[in-house]
Amino acid sequence: MVRIAGVTRRGLDAASRFQARPVSRLARAASTAYFPNEPSAPTVKTAIPGPESQRLMKELSAVFDTQNVNMPADFKKSIGNYIADPDGNVFLDVFAQIASIPVGYNNPQLLKAAQSLDIQSALINRPALASFPQHDWLEILQNGLLAAAPPGLDKIYTSMTGSDANEMAYKAAFMWKRHHERGAGADFTEAEIASSMENQKPGAPDMSILSFKRGFHGRLFGSLSTTRSKAIHKLDIPAFDWPAAPFPQLKYPLEENVRENQAEEDRCLQETERMIVESASPPAAVVVEPIQSEGGDNHATPRFFRGLRELTKKHNIIFIVDEVQTGVGATGKFWAHEHWGLSSPPDIVTFSKKAQAAGFYYADPTLKPSQPYRQFNTWMGDPARALLFSAIFQEIKRLDLVRNAADTGAYLFSGLERLQEKYSGDVQNLRGKDTGTFIAFDSPRRDELVKKAKGLGVNMGGSGVNAVRLRPMLVFQKHHADLFLETLEKVLKA
Amino acid sequence: MVRIAGVTRRGLDAASRFQARPVSRLARAASTAYFPNEPSAPTVKTAIPGPESQRLMKELSAVFDTQNVNMPADFKKSIGNYIADPDGNVFLDVFAQIASIPVGYNNPQLLKAAQSLDIQSALINRPALASFPQHDWLEILQNGLLAAAPPGLDKIYTSMTGSDANEMAYKAAFMWKRHHERGAGADFTEAEIASSMENQKPGAPDMSILSFKRGFHGRLFGSLSTTRSKAIHKLDIPAFDWPAAPFPQLKYPLEENVRENQAEEDRCLQETERMIVESASPPAAVVVEPIQSEGGDNHATPRFFRGLRELTKKHNIIFIVDEVQTGVGATGKFWAHEHWGLSSPPDIVTFSKKAQAAGFYYADPTLKPSQPYRQFNTWMGDPARALLFSAIFQEIKRLDLVRNAADTGAYLFSGLERLQEKYSGDVQNLRGKDTGTFIAFDSPRRDELVKKAKGLGVNMGGSGVNAVRLRPMLVFQKHHADLFLETLEKVLKA
Repeated sequence: MVRIAGVTRRGLDAASRFQARPVSRLARAASTAYFPNEPSAPTVKTAIPGPESQRLMKELSAVFDTQNVNMPADFKKSIGNYIADPDGNVFLDVFAQIASIPVGYNNPQLLKAAQSLDIQSALINRPALASFPQHDWLEILQNGLLAAAPPGLDKIYTSMTGSDANEMAYKAAFMWKRHHERGAGADFTEAEIASSMENQKPGAPDMSILSFKRGFHGRLFGSLSTTRSKAIHKLDIPAFDWPAAPFPQLKYPLEENVRENQAEEDRCLQETERMIVESASPPAAVVVEPIQSEGGDNHATPRFFRGLRELTKKHNIIFIVDEVQTGVGATGKFWAHEHWGLSSPPDIVTFSKKAQAAGFYYADPTLKPSQPYRQFNTWMGDPARALLFSAIFQEIKRLDLVRNAADTGAYLFSGLERLQEKYSGDVQNLRGKDTGTFIAFDSPRRDELVKKAKGLGVNMGGSGVNAVRLRPMLVFQKHHADLFLETLEKVLKA
Repeated sequence: MVRIAGVTRRGLDAASRFQARPVSRLARAASTAYFPNEPSAPTVKTAIPGPESQRLMKELSAVFDTQNVNMPADFKKSIGNYIADPDGNVFLDVFAQIASIPVGYNNPQLLKAAQSLDIQSALINRPALASFPQHDWLEILQNGLLAAAPPGLDKIYTSMTGSDANEMAYKAAFMWKRHHERGAGADFTEAEIASSMENQKPGAPDMSILSFKRGFHGRLFGSLSTTRSKAIHKLDIPAFDWPAAPFPQLKYPLEENVRENQAEEDRCLQETERMIVESASPPAAVVVEPIQSEGGDNHATPRFFRGLRELTKKHNIIFIVDEVQTGVGATGKFWAHEHWGLSSPPDIVTFSKKAQAAGFYYADPTLKPSQPYRQFNTWMGDPARALLFSAIFQEIKRLDLVRNAADTGAYLFSGLERLQEKYSGDVQNLRGKDTGTFIAFDSPRRDELVKKAKGLGVNMGGSGVNAVRLRPMLVFQKHHADLFLETLEKVLKA
């Protein structure tokens, strides 16, 4: 068992002070944990939220929107899978900043990277990356983001967030589609040039991105137009009249509903094809999440996604796989779409969250526009975050964390199967059997479960109407799973 | 003259090594420069681009879009106002990463901040800020972003880039408008809830953001719909059918065209009002740049902007001032709209670029939506960048850099007036007399001037059709202005 060396006290101060020291054999033997000095269990000292948390959030609310606060955190006191609050409570965190912490709070290897002159220079000398790239940008990409690229995709655009990664991908798809419609070498027409400045067709074409009901792709105006998770995400915001196809609603357990689920997926594929062909605004791309996350952890089978890949090829449009939440290991593959056995890779894969950087991968050189300043903005990503990704990627390889997510996920899933059997009213539609720790179940009293688990020291998240979604970090291990399952059972028993 | 202490050799290695050492009196007396160890002049050793730059960009182009590359940079060797390339050339930089470097390359105070445990923790423990804010987030805001807030605006939403800051501002305006139309306490209707999920009205309302011709507000789908700078920014991308009013086209010199310019501004205000009233998609907000930057450095008078403020009040819509490029000191005020003498502040001011952080300021509490998860995303900004802003803000105060921008700007403008007189064919419509170093002029051979200046060691940028826009950093001083003017004159003479 490789371990995260040198963390002999909790938190960042400790990580900082001790990281150069060798770990004694005794300490190494004490546990199989990646973070030997993680707490062995949560600590809950106060009612949740505690008085200090309440005071801080009340003060903050005068200047910052605190309606969405789950809890304030003391990150310097957090470690590994455990998040601390300002009242001295410490929680096992299986939500991990909405699935965006990859390798544990105060990971010493990440701290080391953050202390490097490379990251410090990138922070204080932030480039306009597409115009003034730092001379070693290729090396940075090759050591990190490109080394982790999905099979078959060898080129990258970097960006800042999952939402803008998706929007850049949409723009790439629109430009690609119009480029090929126009024909090689053909220039823009005068009518296109003039009308684009008026936001009118043909220059601003009446085209669309086809997404799926219950999908989530972000909250900017283009990405929100493809998001269909919940009304509260969309109300009062103007949207493009773009089509949304039905996403399969599978019945669980899968083994007992094979034929019905197959028929449901066929229906969704047929409806998708109908929309590709008939939509008033023709789609330039189909965008889909491997597991619809915000929409309630809705899964489909590899067969469904292979069907989408074939449809997009058949109709000559771009297939965008949004791996903002599923990417970077948690499903037991580095990229979730590697579960599908595609005959050819997606045209575009977008990423962010656990990558800490953001952007999209692609292979087809015509997804790069034929002229400069079309796929462009000032920062075009952040080399400091790209360098941090390299450290994350090294840590994932060093500790074999994708395999850990697969193994721990299978273990956790078995435990949840037992709970589903025992508490079938409260644990329903358990899903994610083969997708690492990317596991969810439905519960009619979801909000109550989440709240009570918090009171027992476990921070978990919900999504969709009544789903509990588990999003532990990649350093979540079997002993954490045991602790989680024990706590959940206490809540279910109550 | 306060100076940036301790930089006794060039670049980051030096800044890192020597920052704790006291500066000798001798060194202090040697120059009045903020960066005593800046080069005294550019170094151009090779043709531009040099062989190493060419090799690096050719290699990079296999995986990254290099069509937009101006030059690769070696940031660790850059210092103050000087940017180095991988061929050993060093340029006086008056473009500054598209106006986004505030206080010089490798500023030692910023390096010190980047070396703090606070920033390192923020980098490796990145929060989902709206849900799990770090416990000291209020303190971080108060020491930086809120301390720098525009007069009258005391609340903030943070974001990641200028484009998404603008889009969040647009969303705030739409939600605000519908909230007030609906009436206090009124909930969404069933029809709104259902239609929003279909991207249809009334839930996704047929409303708009009114912007100005030649304006630039970003390249995401909503912000690009308000951007009217150039066709190449917009071609092939679907856009909302939103209105764009004419922006004044002032005649120069201003002193000789007062009456005509006033009539032009009146015409634009009348047309703006007509569009507010008559647009098929009623505007929830007007968005405007204090100086249209990407569109060619187009100025209007304070009277015009006061007129806009009155129009938005009269018609009960939100007035958004986009200070992404103009904010943070370069115009000789911290916020450019402080030049206007408004009777009441803008409703929203957006910022990014030199702030290195991004977001928007506001005052009206009803610009915060009435329910959670409406103005929301995973990261909602970046505390590491907010902390860096605090260091930038301290440095601006310590060195009185807003005053420096005003003083150096006036000096630079006088010099350019002399050149305009002497080379009137090549330096036209000089503008930015009272807006610090935010100065531009038109030239029929703009691209040639920019290229030749580069060959003489000055990196400057263009915008619009034929404008040279000057965007030096806040640490640009009179001796830099002298050097710039000499170089420009050499180019003009040739």
